[in-house]
Order: sequence, then C-alpha cells, then structure tokens
Amino acid sequence: MPHRDPLFTHSGVDRLHALLNQFVAVRAHSIALAAPLSAEDQCVQSMPDASPTKWHLAHTTWFFETLLLQPFATAYQPFDSDYAYLFNSYYEALGPRHPRPQRGLLTRPALADIHAYRDYVDAAIAALARMDVAQNAVKLDAMLSLLELGLHHEQQHQELLLTDLQHLFSCNPLLPAYRSSRPLRADVPQKFQWLRHPGGVVSIGHEGPGFAFDNETPLHQRLLTPFEIASQPVSCGDFLAFIEDGGYSDPQWWLSEGWAQVQAQSWHAPAYWLAPNDPRHPNETWQVFGLEGVQPLHFNASVAHISFFEAAAYAEWAGARLPTEHEWEAAFGMPGLSGMQGDVWQWTRSAYEPYPGFRPRAGATREYNGKFMVGQQVLRGSSHATPAGHARASYRNFFPPATRWQFAGLRLARDIA
Amino acid sequence: MPHRDPLFTHSGVDRLHALLNQFVAVRAHSIALAAPLSAEDQCVQSMPDASPTKWHLAHTTWFFETLLLQPFATAYQPFDSDYAYLFNSYYEALGPRHPRPQRGLLTRPALADIHAYRDYVDAAIAALARMDVAQNAVKLDAMLSLLELGLHHEQQHQELLLTDLQHLFSCNPLLPAYRSSRPLRADVPQKFQWLRHPGGVVSIGHEGPGFAFDNETPLHQRLLTPFEIASQPVSCGDFLAFIEDGGYSDPQWWLSEGWAQVQAQSWHAPAYWLAPNDPRHPNETWQVFGLEGVQPLHFNASVAHISFFEAAAYAEWAGARLPTEHEWEAAFGMPGLSGMQGDVWQWTRSAYEPYPGFRPRAGATREYNGKFMVGQQVLRGSSHATPAGHARASYRNFFPPATRWQFAGLRLARDIA
Amino acid sequence: MPHRDPLFTHSGVDRLHALLNQFVAVRAHSIALAAPLSAEDQCVQSMPDASPTKWHLAHTTWFFETLLLQPFATAYQPFDSDYAYLFNSYYEALGPRHPRPQRGLLTRPALADIHAYRDYVDAAIAALARMDVAQNAVKLDAMLSLLELGLHHEQQHQELLLTDLQHLFSCNPLLPAYRSSRPLRADVPQKFQWLRHPGGVVSIGHEGPGFAFDNETPLHQRLLTPFEIASQPVSCGDFLAFIEDGGYSDPQWWLSEGWAQVQAQSWHAPAYWLAPNDPRHPNETWQVFGLEGVQPLHFNASVAHISFFEAAAYAEWAGARLPTEHEWEAAFGMPGLSGMQGDVWQWTRSAYEPYPGFRPRAGATREYNGKFMVGQQVLRGSSHATPAGHARASYRNFFPPATRWQFAGLRLARDIA
Amino acid sequence: MPHRDPLFTHSGVDRLHALLNQFVAVRAHSIALAAPLSAEDQCVQSMPDASPTKWHLAHTTWFFETLLLQPFATAYQPFDSDYAYLFNSYYEALGPRHPRPQRGLLTRPALADIHAYRDYVDAAIAALARMDVAQNAVKLDAMLSLLELGLHHEQQHQELLLTDLQHLFSCNPLLPAYRSSRPLRADVPQKFQWLRHPGGVVSIGHEGPGFAFDNETPLHQRLLTPFEIASQPVSCGDFLAFIEDGGYSDPQWWLSEGWAQVQAQSWHAPAYWLAPNDPRHPNETWQVFGLEGVQPLHFNASVAHISFFEAAAYAEWAGARLPTEHEWEAAFGMPGLSGMQGDVWQWTRSAYEPYPGFRPRAGATREYNGKFMVGQQVLRGSSHATPAGHARASYRNFFPPATRWQFAGLRLARDIA
Repeated sequence: MPHRDPLFTHSGVDRLHALLNQFVAVRAHSIALAAPLSAEDQCVQSMPDASPTKWHLAHTTWFFETLLLQPFATAYQPFDSDYAYLFNSYYEALGPRHPRPQRGLLTRPALADIHAYRDYVDAAIAALARMDVAQNAVKLDAMLSLLELGLHHEQQHQELLLTDLQHLFSCNPLLPAYRSSRPLRADVPQKFQWLRHPGGVVSIGHEGPGFAFDNETPLHQRLLTPFEIASQPVSCGDFLAFIEDGGYSDPQWWLSEGWAQVQAQSWHAPAYWLAPNDPRHPNETWQVFGLEGVQPLHFNASVAHISFFEAAAYAEWAGARLPTEHEWEAAFGMPGLSGMQGDVWQWTRSAYEPYPGFRPRAGATREYNGKFMVGQQVLRGSSHATPAGHARASYRNFFPPATRWQFAGLRLARDIA
Repeated sequence: MPHRDPLFTHSGVDRLHALLNQFVAVRAHSIALAAPLSAEDQCVQSMPDASPTKWHLAHTTWFFETLLLQPFATAYQPFDSDYAYLFNSYYEALGPRHPRPQRGLLTRPALADIHAYRDYVDAAIAALARMDVAQNAVKLDAMLSLLELGLHHEQQHQELLLTDLQHLFSCNPLLPAYRSSRPLRADVPQKFQWLRHPGGVVSIGHEGPGFAFDNETPLHQRLLTPFEIASQPVSCGDFLAFIEDGGYSDPQWWLSEGWAQVQAQSWHAPAYWLAPNDPRHPNETWQVFGLEGVQPLHFNASVAHISFFEAAAYAEWAGARLPTEHEWEAAFGMPGLSGMQGDVWQWTRSAYEPYPGFRPRAGATREYNGKFMVGQQVLRGSSHATPAGHARASYRNFFPPATRWQFAGLRLARDIA
Repeated sequence: MPHRDPLFTHSGVDRLHALLNQFVAVRAHSIALAAPLSAEDQCVQSMPDASPTKWHLAHTTWFFETLLLQPFATAYQPFDSDYAYLFNSYYEALGPRHPRPQRGLLTRPALADIHAYRDYVDAAIAALARMDVAQNAVKLDAMLSLLELGLHHEQQHQELLLTDLQHLFSCNPLLPAYRSSRPLRADVPQKFQWLRHPGGVVSIGHEGPGFAFDNETPLHQRLLTPFEIASQPVSCGDFLAFIEDGGYSDPQWWLSEGWAQVQAQSWHAPAYWLAPNDPRHPNETWQVFGLEGVQPLHFNASVAHISFFEAAAYAEWAGARLPTEHEWEAAFGMPGLSGMQGDVWQWTRSAYEPYPGFRPRAGATREYNGKFMVGQQVLRGSSHATPAGHARASYRNFFPPATRWQFAGLRLARDIA
Repeated sequence: MPHRDPLFTHSGVDRLHALLNQFVAVRAHSIALAAPLSAEDQCVQSMPDASPTKWHLAHTTWFFETLLLQPFATAYQPFDSDYAYLFNSYYEALGPRHPRPQRGLLTRPALADIHAYRDYVDAAIAALARMDVAQNAVKLDAMLSLLELGLHHEQQHQELLLTDLQHLFSCNPLLPAYRSSRPLRADVPQKFQWLRHPGGVVSIGHEGPGFAFDNETPLHQRLLTPFEIASQPVSCGDFLAFIEDGGYSDPQWWLSEGWAQVQAQSWHAPAYWLAPNDPRHPNETWQVFGLEGVQPLHFNASVAHISFFEAAAYAEWAGARLPTEHEWEAAFGMPGLSGMQGDVWQWTRSAYEPYPGFRPRAGATREYNGKFMVGQQVLRGSSHATPAGHARASYRNFFPPATRWQFAGLRLARDIA
C-alpha cells in the first residue's frame, strides 16, 4: 500500500505552505551543489548529452517561471524575455529553443545573471501563498501539482548536474576533484546472496496521494514467473573479474549492438576506470576517476558508469541475467535486499514503455516523459547522487543503452529452473 | 492448443524425407524470385542495411553448408574455402566475415558461381537421407532441427530479397518494375471496426512439435487489461488523411526521436510514396513505387513502408495507440479480424525483449535471435512478400524503429475506458 | 617548338575524316578494356570517387551525344531521354544529374543497353562526314574542336576505368586479377642520377595547332632558379627503405595534413601494398595488388599509388623535394631523363592553378577544367595505363593531395646550393 | 630595398633591451584585449578551428617558456609541469598535446592561474638581460631570434583572439557586443580605379635585417605578365550587388568545391551578415554582426568574413579575377592603392607554397609555417584587427579556402588584354 503523504492530510493552503518550504530547501540545494565551482566550471559543456551547471540552474528556474508563474501569477513579468528561448529544454509546445549541443556556448548571460534570475523567480514563488489563486480550489490544485513537479524536476537536474560535471572534469587532463573523498560503506558483504521471489500477480506502479511521475502510472497488475534476485548490486571487484577474464574481448557475452560499441569505442572497462599504468594518472593498480578525483578502485563499492550493454554482458558471463523492471519493483522491500536506494541506478532488462492504460499529464508537461518511450532502457533504484527523498520503489529512470556517464550499475537476477 | 505438425507423427527418417521435400521447394523458390533479375541487379547493394540478391542466394546456402553439412556430412568438402568468409552474416562464433556494408562489392564470385554453389550444396543435402547419421537418433534430431531452421532462415531471406530489391530499384531514377502489377483485394472494407478483447491471463508464445524460432519460446502467461483492436490494418486512405491534416509537421503526435527523424530525413509521407508532381515521375495525384513500378495510390490497400515512429504518430493522431505484441497475439483468431497474415507486418508498442525464461538455441545458432534483443520494436503478422506457410500467430519480427524499407504498417488498438 | 599535327595540314573535311578514324579506334579501345569484365564487374562502384565501368562507357558516349550530336546533327534524336540525367558527370550548365556516389546503383540500363547506346551514337557520329555542317567552315571548326575534345575525354576515362576497377577489385577479399602479368622493364637502373637544369626564363604551356586542354594554355614564360632533377622516378625499393626507416611513424617528414591522414587512415605503405604476412594473401615478403592480381613487390618498378603527402614525405626524408610543375615541364626532353611518360604520374609541388591569362573554353565545356582549380595538386607525365598518344609535355593532371588510387608516384628534385 | 631595422644597428645587448621593451608592450596588449571579457567568455571554444581567449593567453606564454626560457635560462623552473601538455598547439617535436577540439573544456587551470603563469614567465624573460647568455654572442643571437619570433607569434594570436571571440559571440542568441562601435572611415571612395602594373621581373619575399617569418624567404625573382589591380578592396555595397543579382544561386560563378560548400552550408551572404528580417535580430535592412554587436551594413566598408570561394565567385561575376600573391606584393606601394594594410586581409589566387629555395627555420620552430604548405590559399595585407606594426608587404597569411571567420575580403585584378 502506498505511503501516505502528510501533505495531503491538510487543506490545499496548508499543502501550499508545506511545498513552499520544500521549495526553499530544494532551490538552496542546487546552489550548494554549484558552490565549489568557478564560473568557468559552470559554463562549459563537454558533450551534447551533458549540460553546463549554469544551464541546469537556469533551466530549472525557467520551468517554474513558465509553467507556474506565467499561468498562475497574473501580474508576473518575465525576468528576461530572451530566457524562454535560451532555457527551454525540449518542450515543443513551448516554442523554439537554443540547440542542445550549443548550451555550453552561452557565456552570456553570466553566472551572476542566472543567480539574479533565480532570486527573482524564487521571490515570485514565495509570493504565491498570498495570491488569489489560493482561494480557487481547482486552480490551486493545478498549481500545486506543477509546483510539486517543478521540485522533483529540479531534483532530477541536481543529479544530472553532478554527472555532467564529472564528465566535464574527466575530459580535463588535470582530472580535478569536485570534492574530497566521500566515506565508503565498510560493511558491504563481499558476496551476494540469491533471494527468491515466488512470482504471481503483483502490483506495479503508483497510485495514491504521494507524488509520482506520470510514467509510474497507472498502478496495474503483472504476472511474474518465480525468480531470484541478488541481495546487492554487482561490486567493482566482481566486475574486475569479468574484465580479467577477457570479458571485453569475447563477443559471446554481448548483445550485437553492444559488441559493436565495444569495438567502435574501444571500451575495455567501465567509464572513468583507469587501468594500471594509464598515462593520465600512472599507478600500479586500477584507479577510478570520480567527483573525488582519482581514487584507488574500491573492490566492495558497487560498480557504476557502465552501459546497459556492459551490464547485460556481465550478467551473461555470470550465468545470470538482468531483472525486469517489474521483478525489481516486486522485490522491493524483501528482507535481505540492500542497495535498492542511494547506491547506484540499476539497469533492467526492460525497455522504457508505457504502462497499460498510461495517460501522460495534460498540458505542456505531457512532453515530460511520454515522448521518450522508445529506444531507452529502464533503470531502477537511485544513486548516491540522487537527492534524499527523491526516488521511490516505483521510480522509473531511463537512458539509451549505450549511456555510461550516469551512476549506473546492475543487480543480477535469474530464473528458477 | 498448438497445431500438430504431421512431420512429427512419423519416425525421424520419415521427417527427414518430408523436410527434404520442403527443402527442394524452398530452394527452388529463391531461384524463382531472382529469375526476373539480371546479374547486375543481383549484385548491387543500395544501403548497408540491405543485401544484394546474389548475397542472399549465397548466404542461405552457406548456412546449410556450415551448420548442417560440415558437422553432419562427414566426407563433405566445402565448395570453396573462401566462401565462409564471404557469406557469414553475423555469427561471431563462426569466424571473421566480410563487412556488411561491402556486400555489394563482390562482383566475384559471379552469379553463375553462386548457382553452382547452390547446386553443389543442394546435392549434398539430398544425399543426407542415405547417410549414416540417419541411424543415430540423437544426431538425427539435431540435424533435422538445423535443417528445418535453415529452411525458415531461407524463407526469411526470400522476403528480404524483395524488400532489398525494392530499395535498390527505388534508388534508380528509372524506377524500374520487378514484376507486373499484382492483383489488389477489391473486398477490403473502407472502415475498420473496433473488436473487444476481455483481457485476463493469456498464453503467449510457442510450445509443441511445430517449428518456431527460439524467440517465440517459452510459452508463458501474460495478464492483459481489456482492450479493443481494429478489425484491419490502417489503409493508405486513412494515412493520407493524417498527411493532409499536417501530421508530418506537428510535433505533438510524435515520439521525440521520431520527430528528430522527421526533420533530419525530411519525411513527409511513407517511403516510396510520390507526392503529386514529384519530379521523379510527375502525376497529378499521389503514386506509390513498388515491385510493380510506379502505381497510383490504392486507397483501400494497407499502408506500408512506414517506420515505427510514423505508426505511433498516426495512432496518436487517431486517438488510439499501437497494440502490444501480446495483445496482438491474444487477439489472433478473433472473429472479424482480417489482415493478420499476408498483408503487411504490423508495428507493435512492444520492444523486442526476451520472454520470461527465454533460452537461446544451443551452439552457433544461439546468435540467431537473442543477441538482437535491444533497441528494436516487434512487428507481428506477415506481409504479402512473406513465403506462404512461413509465419504464425506467435511469430516475432523485429526491426529498429526508424526502419522504413520493410512491408510494415500498423493496426490500431485502444484501452477500454 | 610544338610538334606540327598532320591533321592541320589538310582542309577541314580532311581533318574530319582523320578524326573520325581516330574516333573509331578510341571507341573500340574502351570496349576492349571492358571486355574481360562481367556485367557485374562493370556495374559496381567501390567509393564515391570512383565510377563503374559501365558508367564510364555511357558517360563518354553522352559527351559526344550532348556536345556534338545535339547541336550539330540537326535531325538527331537522343537514344533515350533519361540518359542526359543519368550520365552527366558535373556540368551544371547541362542540367541536373544523378548523384555521383550513386552511380553504382544503376543496374538499369543494362550493360547491353549501354552497348546499344554506344553503337547508336557511333553511327550518328560516323554520319557526320555526310552532313551539311561540313559545308560551313565556322561550324565545322567548332565541331571538330568538340570531336577532338571528346576523344581526349574518352581517353582520360579509359585510364580512370582501370584505376577505378583496380580499387573495386582491391575491396574484394578474393583479390581477383583483371589481366595476366604485364612485362616489367628489366633495364631500369637501380640508382638514379641528378640532372642539372640551369633555370632562367622558360616557356611553359601549350600553343599551336596540336590538341591541348585549356588548362595548358596560354603558353607563357616562367623564371626558374637552377635546380636538379632525378633521372627516373622513385622506385619501390627506394620507397621500401623509407618504410623500413620508420617513415610512416615519424611526423618530422610530413606535412601537417598528411600526418593527420597517416594517423586517421592508418597508412603504413602505399595503397595496395601487402606487408609480409598480410592475412588477405599471406606471404613472407612484401607483395602488391594490381590489375594483375597479387604479385611480389618489384623493387625496380616505380612506386605508385601514393598520395601527394607520401610523395612529399618521402622527398623530405630523402633530403630533396618535389619538382614544381614548371621545373618538370622545363626538364622534359633533357638527355638522361627516363620515365617522363608511360610509367607513373608524378606528383609535383605545384597546386593546380590557372596559368597567367588563362581563359577556359567557351560554352558548356568551360566547366571541363577551370572550376577544379583549387585544393588539388598537379601531376605530370603519364602512366602505363594512359592511352598511347594521350599525354604530352605540357599535360596537367590533377587530384586532391590525399588521392591514392591513381597510378601516381614521384620524381625527386633539389635546389642547387 | 628592405627597411633598415634600427635594432640591428646596435650591439646584441642593446637589441635585447629593445626587444624586452617591445615584449612588455606586446604582452600588455594581450591582457588589454581580454580585459572586457568575463572568465566564462575567455574559457569557451565555439568550434574546433577557434580557441578560447584563455588558451591564447596561455599558449603564447608557453611559447616563450618552452622555446626561450627552457633552453636559455639555465636555472628556470617551469611554472607547472602539466602546462606543456595543455598549451602546446601543434609542435610534434615538443611532445604530445591536448586535442585541439577540446581546448574549451579546460575550465581548469582557472583564468587567474593563467594570469599568474603570464606574470611568472614575464618576470623570467625580464631577467634575461642579466643572464650569462648575453655574454655569448652566438647564443644571444639565437635567443634574440626566438624572442622576436615569440613577439610576432603573440601578435598573430592577438588577432585570432578577436576572430575567435567574434565567432563565439555569434553563436550566442543574445549577439553580445565586445566593444562599442569603432569609427568607420568616411573617406572611402565609392568606386575603385584600375591601376596598371607593367609586369616584368619583380623581387618577391624578404631579405635583410628586419623581422620576417621563414615563409617569406628567400627573396627571389618572379616574371609577371602586365596586369591591373583595383585601387581598393571590394566594398560591402559592391558585394551586395552580387547577392542581389543571385550570385549565391548561380553555379556559373563558382569553383566546383565552392558551389558544393554553398549548397551544403546554405551560404547566401558573407558570414555574420543578417538578411532583412533575420529572426535573430529583426530589421528591415541588411545588418552585420561584429565585435560591436549588430550594426547596420555599412556600404562603403570593405566586405569581410568571406571564404576564398566567395571571393573568387565575386571576381568571376565582376568580370575580373583575384590577384596572385606575387602581383599583390609587386603592386604594394603603387600610388593610388589604398587598403593594403589595416583594413581586411585579401584572398589571393595563390595556393600557399614554398618559395623557390625555401628553408624552414631550424629546430622546433621549423614546424611554424612549412608544414602547412598544402591545401591553403594565401591572403595578403592585414586587417583592422592586426596589431600595429605586425604586417608588411611580404607578409603571407594563409587559411583553407572555406574559411569565413577571419577578417578576409578581396581586391580585384585583371589581365591586360
């Protein structure tokens, strides 16, 4: 049964106040994440798939301005009329936009301008509580829904800000660190256990008062075959065994398109791994580049920064397979499972498809999720970079199968013979 | 309950003889398909995804030679030791191969050499009935399984031979015809009906004595929500209404990646459609290029040569959706359904994924299907170009979502509110 | 003083008859060159820069039809109205044309159709002698000029037919031979001599009654510094020393763009050279693929199939340089020089530029040469594949500097200190 | 006769002091050029051909450090051992380097670090006057030669800094201005005059005590045909007439490769020109984006930001041609000529080739010019962005023919009939 969200036990105005408190916290967290970075660091784009920190800060602000302030705050004047073009990401219904691969060319507006933009929009949102709209229950409901969506949207960008930054820094021969080392869990068991799920009809997806993205709906039933799932994600030590067994040079483990990528991109280890004697940062043993700079490979840590292809190849080599996203969700909460949240995203064997009966959100935000439902694989869980409280059991993350710059690993599953 | 294959009611040797009779017929059909073509026509490759007719003739022969004659016909000498390299398609386990985009550069071996190759292999297969292997039931079973697979493999290539040829001819400004017009069904109703399926637990996939590819197994159960499915595929007249309503210039109907393709490729109609006054073959009204050359657009014919993206956009515009492959299979056989076989392949909303408990074939043919299970969409049914008897209700065809050169259209479905 | 062309000592009508005799010979030679090839061999295109044999046969015919028969043979009816589009190469003034990279997709018209086209046009040309035009001296002069150009044009394509075919066959893993071995000169001295030219004012280019392309005109004067030129082209043995000295892995010898090509294309020897133990045709020593199939490397033969970059790098390594095209032409005829014709084309240090006072031909043939005068390097001499009598001292061949599929080598020059 | 450089009338030590004074001025000018820019502006790279301002500031410093301080300042310690990799541009002899297309990813070192680097190196250079090397005349001579080269090198980068910045700002939808408008000459005559040069033997290149790049040597003689040259560069008004006459849509004016570029890049005017009603900055008339932001098109200003192809097409349309670089140099100083310096670079009809007898500089700086001598066209003159005193009559600038982001226009020439 879904968790009861306390916001919904109160009246609409109380919910508004509660959300505005969350708003302050979420907005401050974005600024805190960017704080260690120079204006230069925040401006540059290292590949078309990644965006500059400054762009993340501006785009999340544009989201509130465009979807909340413009329709609901009647006297609202946009901060700058050019920003709608500069900071729209992919909403066709909201007009033309700056090409994605050129986001890093926007040295203007300056970082200080974006900070002023954020302050301006934050003030306007704060003023919402005093607005007439609060008197209109239907409008208030629509507004709260968009405000809540905007908060979760900004949280998604908080994680992307970090993954995009790590990619940028990885392209710099100096391999700079964003932060000092984060503590690693010392208690991770070295060897996972197989946990058995009986299958049968299970409920998948979200329904109820708490927040969920439209792609998690409707709640529906699936019929599962009995299966086993690993108690923890695959570790770096596990994955190293695959590498050392020649996994990256044996086509038998790979999907056809994955093998083509291995050869075309010369993959020989997860992204950001430095093999012994890598000239970029010579060392006798394996190292990993991350937000903490170059660190020794931590064998017990969960492997990350692998593509779906590498996840699937590892599973094949290990005599297992990836779980479907439904198996993953059905297993959530089973005793003995660890790392289901806050460790690494976990590639599943499921393509990103609409649930039976799926209806996207109405209005401009119908483009939020639905239009990406082809050619991508679902990831479940959440990572150490996911803001606290953002994810949940029914959460569906998705990326193209060759994606490597996310905090994405895998958890094994297998059929019961 | 699956159809009982009469082959399996007899002893292994009887099955061998029956399969050998099929073999003769299938092999002759490939030659018949190529008969109207010159050696030049059969040699050229128009894009990396397509193969020359001559290559199809040789590759299907290589399949029998490599997987059947070499392991089972003990005294067998390969026709030409170079052919293993030239005509392996994608089997990593069977050694290196000629690059796919360069298949059209093989002016040697000449077409006559390939005919001699076919004759040589055909004779060797015919001799199998007299071989010792027929005395060994285990070996015989393995051999018969590969012989049967080889026949279905060749039938798949018979359809590809035609789709690839049509693409080649479409690149020729002369827009030549491969054959004279085929008769079109006069009896197709102009307006489809919605047919209701109650949902519930259904059996999906194949089990039993008849032939099926490994990707159709295992037979398993799915839980379906009630749905409606259209009594016939979408017609050219239906699709023209989408075009005339501006469907190709309105992003609201399109998946994000589909919209990107529309713009990058300047799609404005299905592949092979010639708009009025197209300079390649001027006419006042819409025309279609096909194996019959340029013909007037037949409004009642099922639309074909569309990508998954166009199928999904049409469905969205029509206020409906594509069926999942499971819905399609569950509906098979419902009274009132037409065009489920022999008309056009039908894009489904399902990504091509392994069924629960899927195990690929053992040996080299494990690469036949399983390694392609990512990034592709399932098509169901069969087309007018599919050899008679090749397809079945559980048949899963698959192509990347941007594919347009296949005989692929769509059938609508919708949720029951 | 230029050679006196006997054609010009007679009246126009006599010249017409003489040219028609040449016409018969040249046209027959094209057919003879194609005779050993199958229709498949003649249809396929191995890269955008190369054209199929059949296309060469048709395009040279189109040239006569379009530039000679249509304006001058008043009652002439084109063989097929589609051919103007199919077989125009690059003449913007003559209308749109089939895209160059798709010439190999024209399986229709069939080879037999092209032979019929040639016969049809040949007959119409033969009829010219009986036409009224012969009574009009001005028209006759224009016509003879185009007829003569058409013959030299076809001769150019005769060489391209062979270079393009060699490229096609080199892409075939069977590495087939077009002909049996041609005799190699046994008398080539192993070591070249430096021959001294005093420099000063020299005449460059063409003037006078014999044929020349417009790019060889006008005859003009150049002031040369004294220089030395090698008595013969660089041999394969010479070039092997460069390879064995690590020439392909040391940037100091290379122009910047050449070094980029070496790395991007993984060049390590001239095109078509097979290093010892090359898996395509294993052998203990160096071999070369050519029109004769795979042959042992002949040390005394002139090196061919190198780019300008390789020619320039070799010269730098050898402590010398390439001659300018003016030095090469000024040296022509000096005692002791060999290989100035009929061996290999020789890259010069000269970019392909208009001579002072250059005026392109009038009419459609103004596009013949002038519009290519940028980004290309001049080659001088002629090759063993150049039709006899085609080239001359003032002849200017030209290709982009990365070109490797031509019969192109080099001859050294150096300053006199 | 070459200008007598006063530096060379004194002793070596006096020359050193004079050069050090120049050094201070040149180095300060780079900083002054960057002063109006934020750290963000200075970090980003808008295309592989362009470099960030910060990179220019660092690379010019690396040049002095590597070529001057390391060999000559015996106790010198590099500022940072990573910088040799980060800021080497293209010197193969000086080790591996950061890939050119990724220069804009170097958010670290920060701009402040680069300023510190410059100060450190400047101080070390200033200390050279007190060093022992001044006692050794041979060493001193070598050092002075490199110091002088370094100054001219930095001046080249000062112009590139501006052209690269203009390109970056042009990619920003805000079209920001780098500076307020610069005054335009009011006195430019509207109509140019043809000035006659008698041709004959002329001296080309540089010899003597003043500075020149190696590509300007040796001084040598050329034999020129009489010609006429335009008294001034082609103006924007002149060029607009070409546009309005359909010049960009008529292939007859264009070199073949130029016409291909026009179509592939959709060129319809010089780079940075905004046609009437361009959505980026709507206006009824033509405008131009430049370092001053968007300005009305100034008809009398010399046209700039055109490729060689556009220059050649314009000249063809105008019934004229481009001068060769030798004609341009021979004409330098003729009465009535204006705009030979300080206005726009002028594309010539000459490919960039070595002069007869050319010898590159010795040592690492041999790569400075010579290795680029293929595939590029020579530009003569200098632009308004060229630092005062940098260029001279014999100066040879060069770029690939499709280059548009430089301050490059043209001056007409023609043959004398």
